[in-house]
Amino acid sequence: MGPVLVIGAGLIGTSIALALRRAGVEVYLEDTDPIQLSTAVALGAGLALPVGQAPKLVVVAVPPRHAGSVLAQASKRFSKATITDVTSVKAQVLADALTEGADPSRLIGGHPMAGSEVSGAASARVDLLDDRLWVLTPTADCEVEQLRQLYQLVSTCGSYAVEMTPDEHDRAVALVSHAPQLLSSVLAAQLKDASADYVRIAGQGLRDMTRIAASDSVLWTDILSVNAKQVAEVLSNVVLDLNATVAALQAIATGDATQSVMVNTTLQTGAVGRSRIPGKHGAEQLEISLVGVMLADKPGELARLFTAAGESDVNLEDVRIEHVLGRPSGLVEISVRPDGAEILAAALRERNFDVRS
Amino acid sequence: MGPVLVIGAGLIGTSIALALRRAGVEVYLEDTDPIQLSTAVALGAGLALPVGQAPKLVVVAVPPRHAGSVLAQASKRFSKATITDVTSVKAQVLADALTEGADPSRLIGGHPMAGSEVSGAASARVDLLDDRLWVLTPTADCEVEQLRQLYQLVSTCGSYAVEMTPDEHDRAVALVSHAPQLLSSVLAAQLKDASADYVRIAGQGLRDMTRIAASDSVLWTDILSVNAKQVAEVLSNVVLDLNATVAALQAIATGDATQSVMVNTTLQTGAVGRSRIPGKHGAEQLEISLVGVMLADKPGELARLFTAAGESDVNLEDVRIEHVLGRPSGLVEISVRPDGAEILAAALRERNFDVRS
Repeated sequence: MGPVLVIGAGLIGTSIALALRRAGVEVYLEDTDPIQLSTAVALGAGLALPVGQAPKLVVVAVPPRHAGSVLAQASKRFSKATITDVTSVKAQVLADALTEGADPSRLIGGHPMAGSEVSGAASARVDLLDDRLWVLTPTADCEVEQLRQLYQLVSTCGSYAVEMTPDEHDRAVALVSHAPQLLSSVLAAQLKDASADYVRIAGQGLRDMTRIAASDSVLWTDILSVNAKQVAEVLSNVVLDLNATVAALQAIATGDATQSVMVNTTLQTGAVGRSRIPGKHGAEQLEISLVGVMLADKPGELARLFTAAGESDVNLEDVRIEHVLGRPSGLVEISVRPDGAEILAAALRERNFDVRS
Repeated sequence: MGPVLVIGAGLIGTSIALALRRAGVEVYLEDTDPIQLSTAVALGAGLALPVGQAPKLVVVAVPPRHAGSVLAQASKRFSKATITDVTSVKAQVLADALTEGADPSRLIGGHPMAGSEVSGAASARVDLLDDRLWVLTPTADCEVEQLRQLYQLVSTCGSYAVEMTPDEHDRAVALVSHAPQLLSSVLAAQLKDASADYVRIAGQGLRDMTRIAASDSVLWTDILSVNAKQVAEVLSNVVLDLNATVAALQAIATGDATQSVMVNTTLQTGAVGRSRIPGKHGAEQLEISLVGVMLADKPGELARLFTAAGESDVNLEDVRIEHVLGRPSGLVEISVRPDGAEILAAALRERNFDVRS
């Protein structure tokens, strides 16, 4: 494959370029910001596009609000190249591209499910795309040969291709990413003017639910605006369910205890929904047992813990550190398969760890 | 202090009893379930209350819907004892107790901010309350001597006392615990009938936001029902904000780009709210740098990582393991103070770890 032109040498664009270079593909780069471009070139992600060069594949990696017109320009500049993008919204971006004159037979949208809190070429990594899902949204107009090229791009970058229609993709990310982002922000917003005494007693649940509320508001305004319709639909359903729950709670507060059934149903439905999220490595959710360990907050304690865990030969599925107030100490929760819990707990107790479950 | 009678030998009641025994306090136990009671006695948490014994302090540790009447009964049975409870809702429970005849001069509500997914006497731990905040809700009717006893109870159990009014407590937990629980459940409920393809591309954000949706629905129905009014109020505010956001998104979807400002404001307000949650150990939120490491998913790898991290002498503030699809591997994100990030990353690279940031 190649030569490939990557337009937009930010985190994702430069990481794709690095992954392609790793596989020996010829890569050219463009960016309106000369600093991003020279950083990417210096990282070995490729060379600035020489005049007259015609790439076989163009990857547009610019923010959603610019992606449509950059796709259309690329389609016109390189009349035989396959054109794709990597933005997190598909229907609107592809419609913009076609409106502005992109050739539908060579245009296939894409969205690698990878990212990071950091941005820019300097943060790019050759392995950012490794083991990630990469959604492709081919339409009926695209040629088989162009789709084959896209599959090759995805696997060369170390990712796994998943096909969806643009609308399906946008509904999917609205559900699993965009609406949760706004819910986290709106929940966190309730804390803005709350008494410090109230916020002080917050536990791990609130921390987890508001973590993504710290995300970059400019980037997210862009994403949410371009996928506004689908996000509004998911949030409307959330509001309907919340309104029903609020009504039940208000009825309970004024003496109608029968409405507790409705609250219980909401909680049970949530538990069922939660159980549908695939476990580690996309497998079905595993049955998991927790082993809690209270350990001192000083250098070396986690090392001592995981050395002991390693010696137990039990595979750790997940690790969480829950913070407690007051003095330096932390509860570490280790998730293991049920048959490993007792073995791990015994091994840790033997080494004088304060095992809690 | 003592003798103390703990009524309800579940997780919290038995853990309190164990902590009091650790300090040499005389402890008696009661439970309607003889199995819980004998388990707690076998753990050394105390003895079944002998006939004729009069405790100085009674700790009621039963579910919220029973707590009021058990408090009132205890107040009548032991006419000189100080009476407290440990349930997660205060105004309703204390009002129930007074209605049923508890003596207001000896009644002080309490709520230790500790708990676990597990329950029952068998899961109790002598140190469950160590380093936790323990909210006390004295009213104007209670005597100074009774409050002094409560402070002694809290510190003997290793916790820190925080005073609030019952209403303040209930508003606080509605905001930081009860409303987030329902939001998590309602968000997770949207996944129940979603396409498996949609759920498959879920990332860490959705996982974090729906973790507590897996909580015990019976216990939570009880908690939410008893604090229904305060929870409804918080959720009503959430719904107001969500409705405004949905309206802005719908306006954007139909061409009014100016409404992006409103979406941006919501995101920014969320970031401010999030920043108000105290950091580790109740300190102000620390500036944190992330060091990412991609490691093989096999026994010993975490041990090797934390041994290497320990040798770097950089203190780890937090650890997260993000799962990736496809093949067995995991991205571990280590949070450290900014001045430690480069030192840690260099130490890990030197030991051939795949450091990502």
